[in-house]
Amino acid sequence: MGILSIMGRKVTFFPGPVTAEVRDGETVLEAAVQAGVQVNSVCGGKGSCGKCLVIVDGPTEGGRHGLSDEEYRRGYRLACQAMVGGDLSVFIPEESQVNEHQILASYHGREAAELSPLTEGLRLDLAAPTMDDNQADLERVTCALGLPGLKVPLPLLRVLPDLLRDSGWRVNVMLAREASGDRLMMLNNGSRDIMNYGIAVDIGTTTVVAELVDLGTGRTVAQASDYNRQLVCGEDVLSRIAYAEEKGLARLTELVLDTINGLIAQLCAERDKRRRYHPGTCDDDIASIAIGGNTTMVHMLLGLEPKNIRYSPYIPAVNFPPSCTAAEVGLRAHPDAPVYCVPGRASYVGGDITADILLSGLHLGEGLSMLIDVGTNGEVVLGNKDWIIGCSTSAGPAFEGGEVSCGMRAMGGAIDSVRMTEYDVSITTIGSSRPRGICGSGLIDLIAQMFERGLLDKKGRIDSASSERVRASGGGMEFLVHSEAGRKDIAVTDDDIANVIRTKAAIYAGCSVLLQTVERKFTDLEKVYIAGGFGNYINIDNARTVGLLPDLPKERFEFLGNASLGGTRLCLLSSSMRKEAAEVVRSMTYLDLSSSPAFFDQYSSALFLPHTDQERFPSVRAGRR
Amino acid sequence: MGILSIMGRKVTFFPGPVTAEVRDGETVLEAAVQAGVQVNSVCGGKGSCGKCLVIVDGPTEGGRHGLSDEEYRRGYRLACQAMVGGDLSVFIPEESQVNEHQILASYHGREAAELSPLTEGLRLDLAAPTMDDNQADLERVTCALGLPGLKVPLPLLRVLPDLLRDSGWRVNVMLAREASGDRLMMLNNGSRDIMNYGIAVDIGTTTVVAELVDLGTGRTVAQASDYNRQLVCGEDVLSRIAYAEEKGLARLTELVLDTINGLIAQLCAERDKRRRYHPGTCDDDIASIAIGGNTTMVHMLLGLEPKNIRYSPYIPAVNFPPSCTAAEVGLRAHPDAPVYCVPGRASYVGGDITADILLSGLHLGEGLSMLIDVGTNGEVVLGNKDWIIGCSTSAGPAFEGGEVSCGMRAMGGAIDSVRMTEYDVSITTIGSSRPRGICGSGLIDLIAQMFERGLLDKKGRIDSASSERVRASGGGMEFLVHSEAGRKDIAVTDDDIANVIRTKAAIYAGCSVLLQTVERKFTDLEKVYIAGGFGNYINIDNARTVGLLPDLPKERFEFLGNASLGGTRLCLLSSSMRKEAAEVVRSMTYLDLSSSPAFFDQYSSALFLPHTDQERFPSVRAGRR
Repeated sequence: MGILSIMGRKVTFFPGPVTAEVRDGETVLEAAVQAGVQVNSVCGGKGSCGKCLVIVDGPTEGGRHGLSDEEYRRGYRLACQAMVGGDLSVFIPEESQVNEHQILASYHGREAAELSPLTEGLRLDLAAPTMDDNQADLERVTCALGLPGLKVPLPLLRVLPDLLRDSGWRVNVMLAREASGDRLMMLNNGSRDIMNYGIAVDIGTTTVVAELVDLGTGRTVAQASDYNRQLVCGEDVLSRIAYAEEKGLARLTELVLDTINGLIAQLCAERDKRRRYHPGTCDDDIASIAIGGNTTMVHMLLGLEPKNIRYSPYIPAVNFPPSCTAAEVGLRAHPDAPVYCVPGRASYVGGDITADILLSGLHLGEGLSMLIDVGTNGEVVLGNKDWIIGCSTSAGPAFEGGEVSCGMRAMGGAIDSVRMTEYDVSITTIGSSRPRGICGSGLIDLIAQMFERGLLDKKGRIDSASSERVRASGGGMEFLVHSEAGRKDIAVTDDDIANVIRTKAAIYAGCSVLLQTVERKFTDLEKVYIAGGFGNYINIDNARTVGLLPDLPKERFEFLGNASLGGTRLCLLSSSMRKEAAEVVRSMTYLDLSSSPAFFDQYSSALFLPHTDQERFPSVRAGRR
Repeated sequence: MGILSIMGRKVTFFPGPVTAEVRDGETVLEAAVQAGVQVNSVCGGKGSCGKCLVIVDGPTEGGRHGLSDEEYRRGYRLACQAMVGGDLSVFIPEESQVNEHQILASYHGREAAELSPLTEGLRLDLAAPTMDDNQADLERVTCALGLPGLKVPLPLLRVLPDLLRDSGWRVNVMLAREASGDRLMMLNNGSRDIMNYGIAVDIGTTTVVAELVDLGTGRTVAQASDYNRQLVCGEDVLSRIAYAEEKGLARLTELVLDTINGLIAQLCAERDKRRRYHPGTCDDDIASIAIGGNTTMVHMLLGLEPKNIRYSPYIPAVNFPPSCTAAEVGLRAHPDAPVYCVPGRASYVGGDITADILLSGLHLGEGLSMLIDVGTNGEVVLGNKDWIIGCSTSAGPAFEGGEVSCGMRAMGGAIDSVRMTEYDVSITTIGSSRPRGICGSGLIDLIAQMFERGLLDKKGRIDSASSERVRASGGGMEFLVHSEAGRKDIAVTDDDIANVIRTKAAIYAGCSVLLQTVERKFTDLEKVYIAGGFGNYINIDNARTVGLLPDLPKERFEFLGNASLGGTRLCLLSSSMRKEAAEVVRSMTYLDLSSSPAFFDQYSSALFLPHTDQERFPSVRAGRR
């Protein structure tokens, strides 16, 4: 049977089962995407990350890269490389499944002072016209609202006369408060309830989190999160942009819309369950949507050409996305629901960072503060009420499980903390599940303590004779973190540690360069805000020991959790917050580190534990056990 | 053969031939509408006006009303009443054809001081971005335009990045200058020409006139006019609204759109002929449209419920129609072309009157002026730079040929002037064609001179012994205007004259009541502006003799021609004129005459030639020959 047969092949995925029909020569990963089955993939199908390991039963070709003869014989394949050559069964082992959601971080920081949401529902009780009071119907409404310039779409004006008379001149109106002016969005009989729910979304490159907010009260009704389905197209923004250039942007737009729309459906179902609504009526009740996300994510959502983000001089199509509607974007809500995107400052300092700042209040302080958002990129912002300067460090995905052999995201089964004693290593996992890998906070704990106990030198190399847990691996050494009969060992290699050190060095160097640019020192910082889901789990002592965070008193650090979502929610709830967001962007200077010699100096100096210049980390030196 | 057969019947119209297929029982008029053949109809198919006379060859039923046995035998039928009973040939006699266009009146009055049209085309030559000049693409454009708040639709933002780079940062932009703010409407490569044409339309109840204007230069390129195809649904606004209530608004919207779109196609073809454009490329070049029309016409164009215009307290859906696009309205132009409707003041003082005022400059004068628009309604406006008061007189269609047995509109073959000597009557016709009927200006001439020569008493009754042209007709008398072998005599009856007197009385009474309301006299008027195509043909002396116009020196009258079109064109060309239009509406008081006892007093007193109170017309008395 030739590989190039044009026959359709059945590929059935387990657990499930879910079946897709594909042609010979398509990859198992493509079949999985078609079947709607999520398979872990970090490199975006390049065959380099080895995370999409599956077990096949049936004819395939390729996908053997990095596997032992024994593994290959047992049916292990890389899903992104193995081509379908006939009907197949595919088992997705636990470590390749993407079926648990990152635990939702509640956020801290500011609350909206006044409720002036993106959409506002109002009841109008109008006087019926007379010969002496002969205002036209529309002018009667806009005059009662005090909004003579209100934009009114023709379809609403067409129903207005009958609605006013049928309702006895008592109507509900829904106003969309857009940057380009107020717009009449919805009209109904005043005897009906006004439903005014909003959705705040944080589109992370990896995780998308959404909240359903009652805009009448300002209260969050439900939260949900999911992996960004774009993950099958690449782990980081650059590989997504490359995917768009090769295969077109449309697929990426579709995938992120699917992700968000899935979350909206989930949130509406959750609300309906509690309120016993008739199911299926919810979509139209979503009256407005606020979006926070990095510049690439927002471009892809809106179907805007992202490729110039990737090439010097790194120019996005837009930093202040224009007002648009759910129907125009393709989001599941009232078709005329306004979609507001938090404005960003540049290609690599996007609306997510503006939202972080908004929630932190950094832009309101007298004193100097810093904000660090550790995601797939590491963005750093420095400033006060008078000025803001920001940069992006291209830190890499080590803290999210990328480029680390046993690395994984902070989800169920991830080792999120490590404690070493003289004799043993004790671990905790998220959800107290069986350990499946190690996430960012676990890596920081591990490396910090290995360094403190002399198992690592300051360059991060494992001392071969330091512990019985240390053993040879490939060309170097590895440290065994966890071992369990019948399961793969969880170990950290020299290379893994080098990758973590590169990531922390980039972030620390970004912080240093910003301070250097404005001729200030770390000790001048009154506050250091840590944003991003990651931040909730890290141990500050250990983060200082590895040289990720500066050596400052503990009380100067403040964890904001998912600040991008929190700031986006503020924008959904308050027009003054939307104005503040625009002011934050306008007051921010963007520092491009890719062309900064100072950054490379700082980065090189930071490629040590904790740093070349140990004077910068006095407490680390002193506290060394 | 039963009338109710469900078979399709072929109805072929001559001249033509044009064929329609209809079912038995449908009227010949309905078949004509289906075939796209225009048949004269004043009453809107009620069978009362007798203007839709056709000659049939084949089986029909009904349509005999008012015809002699001989006429019926010869095949004459009323098209609106005769039901198809089999395959038919239908000949439309000249007097029932609607195939000549009312001669275009050139307009007088103000010109736009500055050119700031509804759409503005601009060439942008932008600096390419660098690492130091890293504005996003959209912000680079809006900043160069000096329009940070510019509204940008998502589809344009989607093409912007590639367009900027492919064009070497030289692009053309088209901006729509709407009341709700500026909107980016079109983008293209800077090496292409910018086409910026606008259309100004005056939608009359009877006639629709359109102009193609080059918005780059402000010059009118071409003009065209057509009957409002809604005429088959009724002559005046009230019968159209009744039609909408019975048979739905959609048909009326479709008919007026067909009329305007036909004119736009005609105008584009005219321009293409001159400029040798590739045919069929024109629609997208129409970048903006300005509409003047009475409130009912504008409602029907926009698909807005008109019924409340008809019933007390006569409230329109809107006086300031919102910004909308050609695609939303259904007009043949660039789909995103802004459609601006000149705002109106009330159900019976619409945007056409605002446009009249704008062109006249009445609202800018120190002294008191009056403006009279004689159409199917007669609207009267009084005012100066500080205040305006306006009313509508429901004058009726006598001056447009309605309710007058041999009346017709001012089109080819209409008797437009009459000169009586002691022995003879001499006439002129429009286009010097064979006389087919008599239009408004001819009626005024005739009645004035019959009155002066003693053929009419002051109540407008024909003196039976006064002339050999006077003869008995029906229950009364008639005056023979024109007689020709083999053609129907053109004569004016007692009833016709009574109808004309009622019309002129209503207009004169409207003028009187406005003056009375502000405690002023006719002699206080510095100017009397006459608007409407009608105004171009009337003889002022005769109009004063019948008491239509007040007895003022000739130099105080100023004819504006089609002022509604002229004022609409000003709005198309200039944003300050659009602002002025809004101010005119806001400064205008609307006086409803339907509930005014003063109006009925004035009306009753004016039902004489020239007036009960002969003191008001000293020169008529003096000049009586």
